[in-house]
Amino acid sequence: MNSKLLSIITPLGLAAGLTAGISAPAFAQEVPEHGVFILNSVLFLMSGFLVMFMACGFCMLEAGLVRAKNTTTQLTKNVALFSIAAIGYYLVGYNLMYPLGDWSIEGVFSGLFPAIAVMEAVGVSADAADDISYASTASDYFFQLMFCAATASIVSGAVAERIKLWPFLIFTFLLTSVIYPLQASWKWGGGFLDEMGFLDFAGSTVVHSVGGWAALAGVIVLGAREGKYKDGRVVPMPGANLPLATLGTFILWLGWFGFNGGSQLAMGTIGDVADVSRIFANTNAAAAGGAIAAMILSQISYRKVDLTMMLNGALAGLVSITAEPLTPTLGVATLIGAVGGVIVVYAVPFLDKLKIDDVVGAIPVHLFAGIWGTIAVVITNPDASLVTQLTSIVVVGAFTFSASLVLWYVLKTVIGIRVSSEDERVGLDNSELGMDSYPEFGAKS
Amino acid sequence: MNSKLLSIITPLGLAAGLTAGISAPAFAQEVPEHGVFILNSVLFLMSGFLVMFMACGFCMLEAGLVRAKNTTTQLTKNVALFSIAAIGYYLVGYNLMYPLGDWSIEGVFSGLFPAIAVMEAVGVSADAADDISYASTASDYFFQLMFCAATASIVSGAVAERIKLWPFLIFTFLLTSVIYPLQASWKWGGGFLDEMGFLDFAGSTVVHSVGGWAALAGVIVLGAREGKYKDGRVVPMPGANLPLATLGTFILWLGWFGFNGGSQLAMGTIGDVADVSRIFANTNAAAAGGAIAAMILSQISYRKVDLTMMLNGALAGLVSITAEPLTPTLGVATLIGAVGGVIVVYAVPFLDKLKIDDVVGAIPVHLFAGIWGTIAVVITNPDASLVTQLTSIVVVGAFTFSASLVLWYVLKTVIGIRVSSEDERVGLDNSELGMDSYPEFGAKS
Amino acid sequence: MNSKLLSIITPLGLAAGLTAGISAPAFAQEVPEHGVFILNSVLFLMSGFLVMFMACGFCMLEAGLVRAKNTTTQLTKNVALFSIAAIGYYLVGYNLMYPLGDWSIEGVFSGLFPAIAVMEAVGVSADAADDISYASTASDYFFQLMFCAATASIVSGAVAERIKLWPFLIFTFLLTSVIYPLQASWKWGGGFLDEMGFLDFAGSTVVHSVGGWAALAGVIVLGAREGKYKDGRVVPMPGANLPLATLGTFILWLGWFGFNGGSQLAMGTIGDVADVSRIFANTNAAAAGGAIAAMILSQISYRKVDLTMMLNGALAGLVSITAEPLTPTLGVATLIGAVGGVIVVYAVPFLDKLKIDDVVGAIPVHLFAGIWGTIAVVITNPDASLVTQLTSIVVVGAFTFSASLVLWYVLKTVIGIRVSSEDERVGLDNSELGMDSYPEFGAKS
Repeated sequence: MNSKLLSIITPLGLAAGLTAGISAPAFAQEVPEHGVFILNSVLFLMSGFLVMFMACGFCMLEAGLVRAKNTTTQLTKNVALFSIAAIGYYLVGYNLMYPLGDWSIEGVFSGLFPAIAVMEAVGVSADAADDISYASTASDYFFQLMFCAATASIVSGAVAERIKLWPFLIFTFLLTSVIYPLQASWKWGGGFLDEMGFLDFAGSTVVHSVGGWAALAGVIVLGAREGKYKDGRVVPMPGANLPLATLGTFILWLGWFGFNGGSQLAMGTIGDVADVSRIFANTNAAAAGGAIAAMILSQISYRKVDLTMMLNGALAGLVSITAEPLTPTLGVATLIGAVGGVIVVYAVPFLDKLKIDDVVGAIPVHLFAGIWGTIAVVITNPDASLVTQLTSIVVVGAFTFSASLVLWYVLKTVIGIRVSSEDERVGLDNSELGMDSYPEFGAKS
Repeated sequence: MNSKLLSIITPLGLAAGLTAGISAPAFAQEVPEHGVFILNSVLFLMSGFLVMFMACGFCMLEAGLVRAKNTTTQLTKNVALFSIAAIGYYLVGYNLMYPLGDWSIEGVFSGLFPAIAVMEAVGVSADAADDISYASTASDYFFQLMFCAATASIVSGAVAERIKLWPFLIFTFLLTSVIYPLQASWKWGGGFLDEMGFLDFAGSTVVHSVGGWAALAGVIVLGAREGKYKDGRVVPMPGANLPLATLGTFILWLGWFGFNGGSQLAMGTIGDVADVSRIFANTNAAAAGGAIAAMILSQISYRKVDLTMMLNGALAGLVSITAEPLTPTLGVATLIGAVGGVIVVYAVPFLDKLKIDDVVGAIPVHLFAGIWGTIAVVITNPDASLVTQLTSIVVVGAFTFSASLVLWYVLKTVIGIRVSSEDERVGLDNSELGMDSYPEFGAKS
Repeated sequence: MNSKLLSIITPLGLAAGLTAGISAPAFAQEVPEHGVFILNSVLFLMSGFLVMFMACGFCMLEAGLVRAKNTTTQLTKNVALFSIAAIGYYLVGYNLMYPLGDWSIEGVFSGLFPAIAVMEAVGVSADAADDISYASTASDYFFQLMFCAATASIVSGAVAERIKLWPFLIFTFLLTSVIYPLQASWKWGGGFLDEMGFLDFAGSTVVHSVGGWAALAGVIVLGAREGKYKDGRVVPMPGANLPLATLGTFILWLGWFGFNGGSQLAMGTIGDVADVSRIFANTNAAAAGGAIAAMILSQISYRKVDLTMMLNGALAGLVSITAEPLTPTLGVATLIGAVGGVIVVYAVPFLDKLKIDDVVGAIPVHLFAGIWGTIAVVITNPDASLVTQLTSIVVVGAFTFSASLVLWYVLKTVIGIRVSSEDERVGLDNSELGMDSYPEFGAKS
């Protein structure tokens, strides 16, 4: 085969990267990555908009689980945090997350400059693209941003109904621009956890437990809502709008296909697209397992099915499978999710016993099930080390929890993070925002 | 062209399957299916998540159309049924649906074992993939599961406001693991209806009428809600939250692009992607036709536009085009949908006359419009046989209705399926679950 | 290389169009457009369903911002307008929009015949497809229809709470079948604005300002709601359901990725998919910028964050970036969106000063921010002419506003467009439709 022929054929092929067992491996580098590049980018775009919609899911879930008098505030916080994440991750976070691999001083400082050059030039050519075997950097940025925003969404539900708006938003800015990206770089930026062999496919630890730790720190510094724990009893404060909470859960379930599926990071080969497909099927199985386990267990424990437990069970199933949605079989995925559902049913009253007042159950769902999911990786990955998984959970947790704790304390000391007792009683919508969510629906007497 | 050259070229090409009029057909089998495989799998994933979201659509529609006192129960049923479908279809249904083609004893029994091997191995290579000219089996499984779940969603709305939770869930398990897959195998598993030439592109009969028949059986065995039919009058029991019902309808409309579009089962050639596009456009046209027809007809009949009729009209339009969303022109698709809308407006009072109390209108929408859609196939398919279509409608209907009837009766006899009169009066949320959907919104006096 | 070999190789390649610096450009035309065709069509389908979902977003936004007594009417209008758009655009609009390029009499008249031949034949082959270097015409039709429908959705919010249903629907039919397509042909049909060099990537002017102008005309002809402006004061009439309004905003935000991303019209090359990715990222940045700007400004102006301002700020950010979502950097996109958010905060009270009663803020968001976005094109496009942009804004505005004004006046004169004073007081749901949205939720006393 003469070289002139080769030069003609090579641009035609799209699929060398698609092919297992290529007989002429010399071609693999020069030929056909464009199709792979396009399909990988499409995966990021599709997954990215699904994960973006999770911001809506969190917002609806939380708006449904708070009381009517705090609903406008909860809506405001969710729209604001998603917007702040977009700015914080752009200005600082994205560059902080990725170039940090080597931990050099230069690396750290380069991360602090605005990510002006994040995206390819308009109409980029194959020659000019950063890496034609991967995907558009803009699509990757879009996808990664949505993960960062999800972390912030997790926090807002736990600290609901008594936190001041602006301190929460300042915390969100620092969480999305520094805390999340810094620890994410340890794994996904090629940092030391990654080098240790830590496995966390789509972020049971890197995203969900981080949101959970930040929430836990916030809840501890804030204290429980007034009247929540009275004379040794836990006073129920039921959410005002359960259809909204259910809607939010379904939207999160939908978005999770992007969350886990997109984390395959590639869709341009038979192996990759089949893996993405496995992940979709397993993600759904785990959510179902979590919902059913929580349903059955709440029936057994309380003699009644508890819808909010079931919703959180589904979410816990999703968090549980997030660290490894690929290698389990459907049955194992269902069981991993089911354990997440069981965790929720026991963790919610457990936190109440400790007087840790997490309004929507974010800590059981994202932190506890996130830890479980990270451990469960070893079940279907013979190469995974339990010690490494546990070490990583502890490292990420220690960093995130202590950084968050310091930050919440500083905010508490400097500007105050909790509304007054009187404001809490009348509701944040009235005291903080002056706007009712449901101005026409009379309160039940 | 020597064989060494061939071995180099073959892995490069993606597009032979994409090409009409290939001059060297010898290549068609060995070369380029990878791109087709990937694109087909992407179709299943994208369509699958859209159809998954229909579970949310059904949930919101039903939650909006029941009264406030039964809303939590309706939400619970919808989350539970979707989760149960995931487990039932995995454990039994999927294998029961597909290997049954030959109706051998072995085929039947092989279907009863858990579908452990449903998905490809992780990182499957082209050599190891089942069929590189089709799509990832996991993506196909994901897509098919969502159809099975949709069938169950249809039932829950009809039997609302008086059914006990657990008997409903048991019915759901058997519907999704046995009844649906068994009859679906007759058409989509290559069974006898398929061999007869029955045409049902995306399931007007196989999915929608099946849900409708199961619902009809349930409604008959259950009986009407107390006070619904009194002194020869039909007492209106209006839904508590019409924005929610409208949201559900829009979500279903959205999901239907996946439902019908994905049923093309392929997107890797010009012809296939253009067909998927036709289907998207026709599906939208039929929904619009159904909504407009129901709107105009309700204006003429009642002198007022009826929003719930219009929502059901849109859904009936969608069901009507589901048996053949490809071959009609846009105008014909609009008209097929419009007939669906007309059916709804007449069928709802007709069922009331028979004292068949279908809370959300599932039977008119999914059963009656499903039958119409299955018949309408002959309009644009010269090869279709009206006799075959009618025979298939009857066969599927007779099987599903009688199996459902038996099942509902057994459940009624053994554990009871209806709540007590007193529980129905106070509402299922209080009596069955002890959890209000809108605990703060006072009832209108 | 002999020709027989060529004939074998050519069908294999997918990627020549994908390849920069092809060494054998002779192939570029004959070979590989199929993959491009498929991927472009997928872009239209994916973007199309996202934009379709915007109809739901508008519906929820508006249903949340009107008072409970007018909610069913608002829901009805939104389902109806989307359906009417599907029929009007099919019967007249699509053909009116595209063949008009030459402005010949034949062109105009050809556009008036029903678009029977809009879609490719079923299972079209490459030989028979209209243009194998572009995309399926059915996918393009589907995508374009959704833009037309969005224009109509914009109007319904502004004229809410006092317009009669049927005159509104008649206006919608003429807007979607004639007004929108006619002016859209001037730019997107290759008409005179396009030839002048007018730049409007996804329609800040062609879609959003057109909806805004039609709304402005309607609001002027209708007059303000009774009691809105009293004794020189603006009486607040708060929306009944802010979670719904927030849900609608998030859905619109999601749909906008399709709206702007799909307007790249191509995804089959590295350059195109990277551009679509840029657009996704920029679109999100602009929305965030708009939300944050409105949030901060409402805090400064009113000492309280105003959720509805923030929602409209996000939407204004999205509208602002719509005329040019590709060329800005992330930072510039954020700022362009932020200006949109600022516009909203000042425009809402400004319109109230003029006693222009726009119930949901559609005119600030879609018209004012649409104008700003169209002007902002010159910031990042050195070739763009400010004069051309302004001229186009004026031409489109003058045409749409005057045509709409005439149409609203004719409707007012012939059949009346406003409900009676008494009907407005009791609410349109009761007087026009006889159906409550929330029949069980008692009014706050």
